[in-house]
Amino acid sequence: MTRTDAGRYAYEGLDRIIHERARLGILTSLVAHPKGLAFADLKRLCGLTDGNLNRHLTALQEAGLVETAKRFEHNRPLTSCRLTEEGHARYVEYLSVLEQLVRDAAEAARPVPSPSAGLAKA
Amino acid sequence: MTRTDAGRYAYEGLDRIIHERARLGILTSLVAHPKGLAFADLKRLCGLTDGNLNRHLTALQEAGLVETAKRFEHNRPLTSCRLTEEGHARYVEYLSVLEQLVRDAAEAARPVPSPSAGLAKA
Repeated sequence: MTRTDAGRYAYEGLDRIIHERARLGILTSLVAHPKGLAFADLKRLCGLTDGNLNRHLTALQEAGLVETAKRFEHNRPLTSCRLTEEGHARYVEYLSVLEQLVRDAAEAARPVPSPSAGLAKA
Repeated sequence: MTRTDAGRYAYEGLDRIIHERARLGILTSLVAHPKGLAFADLKRLCGLTDGNLNRHLTALQEAGLVETAKRFEHNRPLTSCRLTEEGHARYVEYLSVLEQLVRDAAEAARPVPSPSAGLAKA
């Protein structure tokens, strides 16, 4: 290990707004549906309650990553959500860090370590 | 979209104990160093302060994912950390969900959507 390893596993590009588990599901749904999704569909795809989805959508809207539009259909309000351009760009950036992490991890994690190895006595 | 898509993007396997950004860095460092790491090396690799690393290690130890051992070298305490067997298993499980997410996302995210969708630009 050398000094140049500093921050090797810091993964600072894992944008905290995006990294939260439910929000990651919401954004991945939206990235997979670039024309947008109705609130009810998004809720079902992400396995979230109304309250939770609302709360996270508000956070994502405030951060400028998601936009919602409301219209009426048969006198019922219908909310649809989609990624903004900025949301798409930040998601793609986040994803590249996540891919690096998965590569780092997959390389190392697969061979099961010996359970009786004990702590390294270097 | 069909009813069978319910929870398609819920990613429930993203274990909350592991998913926190700093902890993800700590665990990925440890998985890449199966013999364990000294506290100081782990701190540098993850770009964390003493306080932050301590706080996260405590959480990970309480969850049974990490074990630490303290010994003295030249009269100075030296703490080393490694994954437990359970920690390794749970990390690998987490990783498989993360890989699924990356596949889902990478498929969908790469072609940049037209901001003015609908207008064909020949």
